[in-house]
Amino acid sequence: MSIGNKIWVISGGHIPLHSTGEEPAFTSRDVLCLLNTHPHEVRVRLTIYYEDKEPVGPYPIELTKNSVRQVRFNDLVDPFPIPLDTNYAAVVESEHPIFVQFTRIDTSGANMAMFSTMAFPADT
Amino acid sequence: MSIGNKIWVISGGHIPLHSTGEEPAFTSRDVLCLLNTHPHEVRVRLTIYYEDKEPVGPYPIELTKNSVRQVRFNDLVDPFPIPLDTNYAAVVESEHPIFVQFTRIDTSGANMAMFSTMAFPADT
Amino acid sequence: MSIGNKIWVISGGHIPLHSTGEEPAFTSRDVLCLLNTHPHEVRVRLTIYYEDKEPVGPYPIELTKNSVRQVRFNDLVDPFPIPLDTNYAAVVESEHPIFVQFTRIDTSGANMAMFSTMAFPADT
Amino acid sequence: MSIGNKIWVISGGHIPLHSTGEEPAFTSRDVLCLLNTHPHEVRVRLTIYYEDKEPVGPYPIELTKNSVRQVRFNDLVDPFPIPLDTNYAAVVESEHPIFVQFTRIDTSGANMAMFSTMAFPADT
Repeated sequence: MSIGNKIWVISGGHIPLHSTGEEPAFTSRDVLCLLNTHPHEVRVRLTIYYEDKEPVGPYPIELTKNSVRQVRFNDLVDPFPIPLDTNYAAVVESEHPIFVQFTRIDTSGANMAMFSTMAFPADT
Repeated sequence: MSIGNKIWVISGGHIPLHSTGEEPAFTSRDVLCLLNTHPHEVRVRLTIYYEDKEPVGPYPIELTKNSVRQVRFNDLVDPFPIPLDTNYAAVVESEHPIFVQFTRIDTSGANMAMFSTMAFPADT
Repeated sequence: MSIGNKIWVISGGHIPLHSTGEEPAFTSRDVLCLLNTHPHEVRVRLTIYYEDKEPVGPYPIELTKNSVRQVRFNDLVDPFPIPLDTNYAAVVESEHPIFVQFTRIDTSGANMAMFSTMAFPADT
Repeated sequence: MSIGNKIWVISGGHIPLHSTGEEPAFTSRDVLCLLNTHPHEVRVRLTIYYEDKEPVGPYPIELTKNSVRQVRFNDLVDPFPIPLDTNYAAVVESEHPIFVQFTRIDTSGANMAMFSTMAFPADT
């Protein structure tokens, strides 16, 4: 199936500073959930926008054929780690159409809070 | 009314491993909420994508005329149960236009956390 | 401004059975958040779909000019109250374009959980 | 990149009345997350709709080039602060295409609850 979009955006990124509970299940995190429905690898590049400095990227992400991949923003290191407790946005550009969902797990309080939303398809 | 879409996608699936509280209200779960506004039955097929193995499906789902149906991913068994604590994506294909919303209830901590988002319409 | 859509859908309705904490702020509820940007009243009709019975409606809703209105599904009584702890979907039809967001507050556990998503525009 | 939309809407605004925990991380709030991918400043104007009074605005917001900005509705004062515990909607109008996400943090109970959704693009 050739379905999906090539550019996806979220503008409400913010990795919580603190975590409560066992790692990695209860680690506070922002997560990008990427689906590649193609029968071949797809290369994705991520650009991170900040409030008071220039955008950083591209962060290269490889998606295996016919598969999903969850990427924790906390784990991105190349070209530069994303600081905690900092507002950011992410623009996902893919060479072929894919799907992107954005999820946050926040355990900075005593409990777990979370949200998820489909990212916004910007190339329609 | 002939409204809706025939292909819907979510890419951030993950059934939490643990649950706290009474079943079935407080069982951790991923849920697909399907609406059929047609005056006749509609057949839906679900395909599940994983990180490191081939997609599994189709999972057949029958929607009664003029009705809603909530399907817990936890309860899908044919052709194969979806493992807990595993990242997955779901592609919903329907022979007629329908609506799909995706909800997670997570009681793996001491409290209940939840999110819901409309799935992404992929055939527009 | 004449912006918005005339048909909006959510398919994951379910008013939680129990509530904890003071009413009405902590009452478990499903809420429809409607925005009318027109300089005149707008009439909206709501249809509720269930799992195992015929759809019920229309529920008439009047939107004052240039204003927002939040309707708790819990409070709908005409033509028929929506039972608690029951899966349902809602189709919102408006004579003029409006905006619809769907929110749930769930205090059935000891804590508050919530989600919100823009409803799905079905007339595009 | 010239991607994005010029009008974005959320209809389910409501700043919670109470907060628990340290400020500003745990302050109950509604937040608008705006992304400007242009290599120049972008001017945005916000209009707030209420249930029982005329819309208030415009609230002017300046977006720095190539950057994200999170605006707490709690902090808007000009032309008029947004009262707490009051239903409202927000229409965001931008001179150039941008992206808008809407997030609520609610610590009015003992725990933190939250949701986030992409705002609705009204100029498509």
